[in-house]
Amino acid sequence: MARVGAKPRTCPDEVAVALTFNGTTQAVMMATPADLEDFAYGFALTEGTARPHDIESVTVVETPLGVDLQVWTTDAAAERLAARRRSMLGPVGCGLCGIDSLEQAMREPMAVTGRLVMTAEEVRQAMVDLPGHQPLHDATRAVHGAAFWQPGKGIVLAREDVGRHNALDKLIGAVARASLGPGAVLITSRVSIDMVQKCAALGAPVLVAVSAPTAAAVDMAARAGLTLVAGARPDGFDVYTHAERIKDKTHVA
Amino acid sequence: MARVGAKPRTCPDEVAVALTFNGTTQAVMMATPADLEDFAYGFALTEGTARPHDIESVTVVETPLGVDLQVWTTDAAAERLAARRRSMLGPVGCGLCGIDSLEQAMREPMAVTGRLVMTAEEVRQAMVDLPGHQPLHDATRAVHGAAFWQPGKGIVLAREDVGRHNALDKLIGAVARASLGPGAVLITSRVSIDMVQKCAALGAPVLVAVSAPTAAAVDMAARAGLTLVAGARPDGFDVYTHAERIKDKTHVA
Repeated sequence: MARVGAKPRTCPDEVAVALTFNGTTQAVMMATPADLEDFAYGFALTEGTARPHDIESVTVVETPLGVDLQVWTTDAAAERLAARRRSMLGPVGCGLCGIDSLEQAMREPMAVTGRLVMTAEEVRQAMVDLPGHQPLHDATRAVHGAAFWQPGKGIVLAREDVGRHNALDKLIGAVARASLGPGAVLITSRVSIDMVQKCAALGAPVLVAVSAPTAAAVDMAARAGLTLVAGARPDGFDVYTHAERIKDKTHVA
Repeated sequence: MARVGAKPRTCPDEVAVALTFNGTTQAVMMATPADLEDFAYGFALTEGTARPHDIESVTVVETPLGVDLQVWTTDAAAERLAARRRSMLGPVGCGLCGIDSLEQAMREPMAVTGRLVMTAEEVRQAMVDLPGHQPLHDATRAVHGAAFWQPGKGIVLAREDVGRHNALDKLIGAVARASLGPGAVLITSRVSIDMVQKCAALGAPVLVAVSAPTAAAVDMAARAGLTLVAGARPDGFDVYTHAERIKDKTHVA
């Protein structure tokens, strides 16, 4: 590599990861090859494929072309999944018609009901602390982070990935497996609809993002009962929805 | 919205867009509802579904839940596509086995052979000019941009989207439809494998990115004959692969 100007950085790894449920691949993602079991649990939960107690085993199978993440579920969950696949299968190929596909993409999450409260100072301090939980980002400047914050504890878990959706799925998988109590999700990235859907699937009542949300993500957070905080930096943040969970707002400059 | 700290911004729109080919939906993406015909052409090209001359019509059908982007191809292309779908359809649901899915995700692009050359000063100037082609980003700070640069002309086309893959697909669709000559692709985002695959599908010999590449993206660019420049800011850049297309490197501080 020839550098013209300032100093070069390390490149993060990226591999193709197939998510295979009971022998059938549901998706292939380009992902950072770390915390893949968490990724399997989180993807399964946020896509509505299986909840942690439905999963009997996750095996990370390395192949020359990438990783096959083989998830096996209980028989009951496997039957539900197979029935859903049959109902989604149109007459040609993987064909859903456009309308069915749009309904699936825009599905409304279950409403979030958690009673978590954060003070403005806690939000500010969490965003100050977040970079300390991003070792891969420090080395590469090319990955996203997601973290879980709990009252009185601060950041208790963090995960990273080249993809912002994957980082969040890994975090959610880790949180769900650990059966942690209520907390807020922090992400380094932007907030699109799917990020809101994922947090709601976890049941986290507060989502704090460094970057901005889309208009549709704000609408969905409002409907889902999720407190959405974005543009969150040490010097301030925007509270877009359900501001009742953020206290003492005037105490931050 | 309650702002705690500095001033708020406008949120970009985001809608679910179904990409439907000959009546069968291939994918649903959350996207910025602009330049959707370009998106259809670019997605079809970069996914290997159809080339511009295979496409007979693109219709943007707005629905309450999002946009169904209905693409109809020539009969010959439709038959190729249907045959490919049949070959990809396993015995259960949409099931590819993990290995087949990984092969598809890691497919090697056709080698790029274009003889485009950029000077280091042209790279630098292009990155200075790029923000001037991102009006939606100026308003929202939450979208990615992709632009096409040509020798003697500078940036001739630019597209934006909430998703970096979508922004690039829109740009590629616009470039392919306009039958522009050789040029370089500029992106505001990071470089993962799929960004390299997309540029190679267009046949663009140079990809210049603001942010960093993954290790796998560098490897694929090397194999595909693509000149990959990343970490590109007005004060410098890294040339990762096929540096022979970047001249006068010592002329930048």
